Amino acid sequence: MSDTREQILDQIKVQGDLVRQLKAAKESKEKTAPSGGGRASSAGVPALEQQKQHQKQQPEQQQQEQEQLHQIDEEVARLLALKAKLGGDAPPTNQKFTLKTPKGTRDYGPQQMTLRQGVLDKIVQVFKRHGGEAIDTPVFELKEVLTGKYGEDSKLIYDLKDQGGEILSMRYDLTVPLARYLAMNKISSIKRYHIAKVYRRDNPAMTKGRYREFYQCDFDIAGIYDPMLADAECVKIVAEILDTLDIGDYVIKLNHRQLLDGMFQACGVPADSFRTICSAVDKLDKSPWADVRKEMVEEKGLDEAAADRIGEYVRLSGGAELVEQLLADAQLKAVPNAVKGLEGMQLLLKYCSLFGLDKRVRFDLSLARGLDYYTGVIYEGVLLGESAAVGSPVKTSQQNGEQANEPATVGSVAGGGRYDNLVGMFDPRGKAVPCVGVSIGVERIFSVLEARATASGLKLRTSDVETYVASAHKGLHEQRLKVLNQLWDAGIKAEHSYKLNPKLLVQLQHCEEHQIPLVVVLGDAELAQGLVKLREVTTRQETNVKLEELPAEIRRRLQTA
Amino acid sequence: MSDTREQILDQIKVQGDLVRQLKAAKESKEKTAPSGGGRASSAGVPALEQQKQHQKQQPEQQQQEQEQLHQIDEEVARLLALKAKLGGDAPPTNQKFTLKTPKGTRDYGPQQMTLRQGVLDKIVQVFKRHGGEAIDTPVFELKEVLTGKYGEDSKLIYDLKDQGGEILSMRYDLTVPLARYLAMNKISSIKRYHIAKVYRRDNPAMTKGRYREFYQCDFDIAGIYDPMLADAECVKIVAEILDTLDIGDYVIKLNHRQLLDGMFQACGVPADSFRTICSAVDKLDKSPWADVRKEMVEEKGLDEAAADRIGEYVRLSGGAELVEQLLADAQLKAVPNAVKGLEGMQLLLKYCSLFGLDKRVRFDLSLARGLDYYTGVIYEGVLLGESAAVGSPVKTSQQNGEQANEPATVGSVAGGGRYDNLVGMFDPRGKAVPCVGVSIGVERIFSVLEARATASGLKLRTSDVETYVASAHKGLHEQRLKVLNQLWDAGIKAEHSYKLNPKLLVQLQHCEEHQIPLVVVLGDAELAQGLVKLREVTTRQETNVKLEELPAEIRRRLQTA
Repeated sequence: MSDTREQILDQIKVQGDLVRQLKAAKESKEKTAPSGGGRASSAGVPALEQQKQHQKQQPEQQQQEQEQLHQIDEEVARLLALKAKLGGDAPPTNQKFTLKTPKGTRDYGPQQMTLRQGVLDKIVQVFKRHGGEAIDTPVFELKEVLTGKYGEDSKLIYDLKDQGGEILSMRYDLTVPLARYLAMNKISSIKRYHIAKVYRRDNPAMTKGRYREFYQCDFDIAGIYDPMLADAECVKIVAEILDTLDIGDYVIKLNHRQLLDGMFQACGVPADSFRTICSAVDKLDKSPWADVRKEMVEEKGLDEAAADRIGEYVRLSGGAELVEQLLADAQLKAVPNAVKGLEGMQLLLKYCSLFGLDKRVRFDLSLARGLDYYTGVIYEGVLLGESAAVGSPVKTSQQNGEQANEPATVGSVAGGGRYDNLVGMFDPRGKAVPCVGVSIGVERIFSVLEARATASGLKLRTSDVETYVASAHKGLHEQRLKVLNQLWDAGIKAEHSYKLNPKLLVQLQHCEEHQIPLVVVLGDAELAQGLVKLREVTTRQETNVKLEELPAEIRRRLQTA
Repeated sequence: MSDTREQILDQIKVQGDLVRQLKAAKESKEKTAPSGGGRASSAGVPALEQQKQHQKQQPEQQQQEQEQLHQIDEEVARLLALKAKLGGDAPPTNQKFTLKTPKGTRDYGPQQMTLRQGVLDKIVQVFKRHGGEAIDTPVFELKEVLTGKYGEDSKLIYDLKDQGGEILSMRYDLTVPLARYLAMNKISSIKRYHIAKVYRRDNPAMTKGRYREFYQCDFDIAGIYDPMLADAECVKIVAEILDTLDIGDYVIKLNHRQLLDGMFQACGVPADSFRTICSAVDKLDKSPWADVRKEMVEEKGLDEAAADRIGEYVRLSGGAELVEQLLADAQLKAVPNAVKGLEGMQLLLKYCSLFGLDKRVRFDLSLARGLDYYTGVIYEGVLLGESAAVGSPVKTSQQNGEQANEPATVGSVAGGGRYDNLVGMFDPRGKAVPCVGVSIGVERIFSVLEARATASGLKLRTSDVETYVASAHKGLHEQRLKVLNQLWDAGIKAEHSYKLNPKLLVQLQHCEEHQIPLVVVLGDAELAQGLVKLREVTTRQETNVKLEELPAEIRRRLQTA
């Protein structure tokens, strides 16, 4: 824009007057409005909400005022834009807010994106190895879709503002949207993966990889199948992913919601407290048993004796032998749910063994998972050892909930389970589609890998440029564009300086800094003979190449490199 | 869950009583509340907002009531979950809302995702060929970040609900977040691409590929460079993408904001009406000149003579010869902005010519682009001819805004331009980072390609499974899991039926339907000799293969296929 400073200042004055007039008109109307009169002076959000209320009773007036509000917004926006035009020589009035991303979110620069894309590609490879098909759903859903799915965590859902029309919320996970998708499209079997961002108004702990906006990578198997076959494959998928990412030692904890419910029943927990007591048990990976017991007894009104009985069970973890032991337990034997859960665990452990996972899985009675919708197997992949940068002490056999001399964990990096009733909650006739799935906590994986990359000082290449086209002297920019065009049309990744007459040294330095392997150096002397110089950046060797053979020669060099 | 129907009904009763008690408690409190008393009976959203207001004055009461509200929500959620448990035999009370995605959004099933992923991969390939680096930003921004960037379109921004904390809006494009990112991180040069969803509360026209949630694929070059070098490369990128996607004939229209402003000035438009008149011109691709003229004169108060003078110019389109003609135009010659714009066009057309784009680009004075932030070159890629499923008649040379016997267009499939002041609007000291970029309208491209795929009846493969592991008879599921495990560990994409004893015919049919090339058929007779049958699905040929050689043999077959 080349308006003079004076012209812009004039425009700002006109625009400012307009905004003032509009505001005055709106305020005078508010003062005479029926129910909002007493609070007309309280500007901002409350006034807006107030206005919304009496507008509900007076649709026409509502629309008028809404338009006025929009108009003010727009005029203010234009005013700001005009001010901004004043640019560098203006006082710094063009930006009055802190320049940041929303709380709990972050940008990903080229370095981070390169690392992330590498991780996601590997995960997709595993998903595809197991026959996964991709789907995608909108980032928000009708609010009702999410209602009643997340228990105590529902308060963490982001809602959209009511701007007229539907009431929307940001997705909280990819599981509920999948269930809605299956019910809506009457799909009774699918093996799908979905990689997308989800949203939780949680307390962010960015160093631990806990964000308000974060990627989930989900794989789910929906359909009526024989017990534990799909469930065991999900555990296998977690193991394959953690193996291929090579982020160190890990364990996949397994438990069963039916066993948990049976255990609660055996311990004397009233049926309507199962979910809330389950939520308390879920905290055992972060809090010691004493705290969890206190929550059960004092906050959730559980009988002390019942809590102590639970305390005995949730300390247990092990393998097939523990299942045997519990199947012989007098208290559990009496509860059908507990027996069914244990039999399920027995089968799951057998299949996991066939998948070569004996050393990777551990039956763990303290594993509860926060979400309400699980109905069967639940599991959680946890990193162990040095690779785990942060976290609470890991719980091992016979030691759940107590401090032990064990390697620290970065917390869960994968989790999931079976949810047989979720799709039925969306089907008008309640038709169930049994599902089991797993979600990979890639943010924590990224955190671990980023910390490792930072520690190693290794810098990833963030672009794939293969050839740089340089000018040896002035006046060659048109030649450069022609050569670039030739390379691009041949599919070669190439770039130049966007300067008419860049210095040769600067161009060559750019190539060394960005690890670009080849440089085409243009010079009048060579061009006169239909030649260009091709330079290898690492060896600094230069060869003359015929212009028409350049793409083929570059491809040959890249292949042999 | 194996609770009996009676147990669940009991729980529902308990839960229902709890909800009623909580609601009664809340309502009785509301009746005694100071400022909300008169409207305690108006339930739902207004009551909530009302409550929020007097809560501002009484923080403790606020928190108490907020907790109560949460508790009610949670208990209601649990009630619904319990009801849902009743499943198929319960009355259809579990879902009372229409099962749909939010207005203007849609799900993408495996077929659509396969097509989309193919398109996005090709686009990324072009971006990388030009040295693009990937970045990502949050899906929402502080509302202030978006304020004053979109002119008349600002009303289409989605806002998030104020849930305490920051005021957020969904991103409207990827350009403003890029500018915020550059200013925040003090980056003065980058060549980045960003593929992500953006959000506009527009009137959806799904058949034309216009949605409220849609992907944008952006490539932008930021930095202080010599004129038009980066700008021309963006035009080249559009051409490469449209060529590689093979969606038929297209033209890339070019114009210059400085020329538009100069032309408006030459026609007698007041300086403070440039942007609003520009918005009117922008509608010329959808409306005839008569309508646009009417908007200028009647809605925007432009002098009739000025409108008619604009009308003469915006009919013009052509190539370098048109630039020459306009440089000689007496009215334009007198306006420095117009001359600068024309000189820019001249240079751009020359570089485009060096990039082999003579037949692809067209200088078009009716091209305006809606967004406020452009300051230089603007461009738009438009599909022509049969591939364009829907849309208005295309404007060609000398015919802008008038009906002509020209092929119909699907509308814009790419657009962009130069915005030199946007980053400066975020920098506290107004430091400018000149930028030019392009955004690919992939949704319209998807629409065209989906329509073409539907018309051809072609079904894309949606999974990559290479080998199916089948049982020839009962009792082989454990053997199947072992073989699957062997294949997965060898990196082969394999699946099975998830049934203990599936029928062989059903398994083979699955392979034919899903175009899986190979089947491993297990049978006791072969297994006793350490063999399995390997079957080619298309030829139905079967060969015995040693179990330990299976992965290698499968890989060999896949390579020769």
